[in-house]
Amino acid sequence: MSSTVRVALDAMGGDKAPGEIVAGAVQAAREFDMGVYLVGREDAIRAELAKHDVTGLDLPILHTDEVIEMGEHPANAVRRKKKASMNLALELVRDGQAIGAVSAGNSGAMLAASLFTLKRLPGVERPALGGVFPARTGPCLVIDMGANADCKPEYLLQFALMGSIYMDRIFHVASPRVGLLANGEEEGKGNQLVIDTYQLIKADAEILGLNFIGNVEGRDIPTGSADVVVCDGFVGNVVLKLSEGLAEALIGMLREQMSSTLINKLAAAVLAPGLRKMFKRLDYAEYGGVPLLGVNGAAIVSHGRSNARAIKNALQVARQTAETGVATAIAEGLARLKTNSGKQQAEV
Amino acid sequence: MSSTVRVALDAMGGDKAPGEIVAGAVQAAREFDMGVYLVGREDAIRAELAKHDVTGLDLPILHTDEVIEMGEHPANAVRRKKKASMNLALELVRDGQAIGAVSAGNSGAMLAASLFTLKRLPGVERPALGGVFPARTGPCLVIDMGANADCKPEYLLQFALMGSIYMDRIFHVASPRVGLLANGEEEGKGNQLVIDTYQLIKADAEILGLNFIGNVEGRDIPTGSADVVVCDGFVGNVVLKLSEGLAEALIGMLREQMSSTLINKLAAAVLAPGLRKMFKRLDYAEYGGVPLLGVNGAAIVSHGRSNARAIKNALQVARQTAETGVATAIAEGLARLKTNSGKQQAEV
Repeated sequence: MSSTVRVALDAMGGDKAPGEIVAGAVQAAREFDMGVYLVGREDAIRAELAKHDVTGLDLPILHTDEVIEMGEHPANAVRRKKKASMNLALELVRDGQAIGAVSAGNSGAMLAASLFTLKRLPGVERPALGGVFPARTGPCLVIDMGANADCKPEYLLQFALMGSIYMDRIFHVASPRVGLLANGEEEGKGNQLVIDTYQLIKADAEILGLNFIGNVEGRDIPTGSADVVVCDGFVGNVVLKLSEGLAEALIGMLREQMSSTLINKLAAAVLAPGLRKMFKRLDYAEYGGVPLLGVNGAAIVSHGRSNARAIKNALQVARQTAETGVATAIAEGLARLKTNSGKQQAEV
Repeated sequence: MSSTVRVALDAMGGDKAPGEIVAGAVQAAREFDMGVYLVGREDAIRAELAKHDVTGLDLPILHTDEVIEMGEHPANAVRRKKKASMNLALELVRDGQAIGAVSAGNSGAMLAASLFTLKRLPGVERPALGGVFPARTGPCLVIDMGANADCKPEYLLQFALMGSIYMDRIFHVASPRVGLLANGEEEGKGNQLVIDTYQLIKADAEILGLNFIGNVEGRDIPTGSADVVVCDGFVGNVVLKLSEGLAEALIGMLREQMSSTLINKLAAAVLAPGLRKMFKRLDYAEYGGVPLLGVNGAAIVSHGRSNARAIKNALQVARQTAETGVATAIAEGLARLKTNSGKQQAEV
């Protein structure tokens, strides 16, 4: 055991659990020199571990029989199944035994369990999911990706801060460009929520250290004209699902074309390495998972279809989120905002 | 002159006006046996017409010097420039001299001018833009595409009716599947607007003859799981811009890959015909333009970048919208709804 840093992993969560999940933990432990708590059914986890060389790796098991299934009602399941693998993984974070938690299980439940166990950071009104999109020029964080369907301007202001800190700490983007998703670039465009949020972010950008570039449009997400795109969770979810669907449809059409005749297949074989590289840029597994920002700890919600590589990357993202102090920076920013608005009120 | 049916065309509207616009009119007149009123600067239009063989075609010119430019404030420009080509084209519809109008100019202005000149149909609360998306299985109409950023459930119910009638009449989809765009498929998912709209559509679907399939997600637009997708204009605009941006980004990456080396170029040449066919499916020009539904007349808002083919198709769509009685069917549906809710109230 060369490492004392551990991330807690819900070994039972995800379509490919526990096989790919445990495999991801083994890869992360080896590649990133980290410890991974494997939370779930001990016999199933042991059977998977037996398939790998785990010599010298820090992979302790925390046994539990309870698992939250994909179809269950998130909040109910979290409350009823106190010993669910997801809950226990988060408790390891709460109790300081792990620095972060990852689950590819029921994402609504992971959201609810993180809120319930880790609690909101001081000053945070609504934690939000920050989804990383592969833009042409680099990653673009869309926040909120689906945690809050109905929002107020104050929530979106906080999302802007949380997203900016995350892109700075995790992706090393200096002074991330923060855009507000709207139906036009000009100030004054938007629905009422966006119009009000624009003024709020504009007013508080300096005190929060935000590089606010104003409104952006849907096209700015894939082109990478902003590093952080702020929207409510309803719109963010539509953006996520539409992007996934459109990329799949296009890639599907492309595959159809390329395998339609023998000569097409040969031509496709020539192009294959380059195309594979291109598809990799579009592969959500690259970014491992979606952080829930605004809770007191690092919680990563991974895609249900996560494979070993996605889990490996998610574990590393959880660790970096903790080690770079994302949560502390969020709390500090909000405290500064509060002090400032107190001062402004005193001045009036 | 073999035809008496005429569509009015804003010959000065669009990035490629008047060249591509007039060329589109010539093509439509020839191919679809229709007349096209060319509204705009007579000398410029005549110069373009001289480049084509227009023997036997019905292409009268209505001269005006005023044009609404792309950067102008829509409502202000429409009010100030009474003789703008766009305004005059719509007046031809209002006065019964044309059965529909098309413009690829300032789309906000075309929206405002259509509302101002054609007026709302009886019973319509908010006219809406119905954008046609090329889904895998056929066209999918997203309504509203951007006319109304803030909506009420009653508006969305009307969008559902308008979209359903349009897909039935113009694309011959029998009993179009109408989905409500949400952040999850289950009833009860959505923001407050969507949750309330769901109940309203469910209650009125039968009287309106709607095939309501419940909530759909962003991915259902490209996959074609619904024929009509209902959302507010803010979300619709994000969907439109994101789709355009994502398709462009993917195609750009593909082109880059395919021209990176000589052998890649050769392989790409083999695949080119098939890929061209694929891109055609994704080409918005195929569908010509976006109808503004709910006004008393056929008004088509074409893309600013429209080429001759897009204009040709838009002119045909305008004609079909008028000839198949889309507006009348919308007014009838809403009258039925009103009578029914009157009855229900009387019964209470």
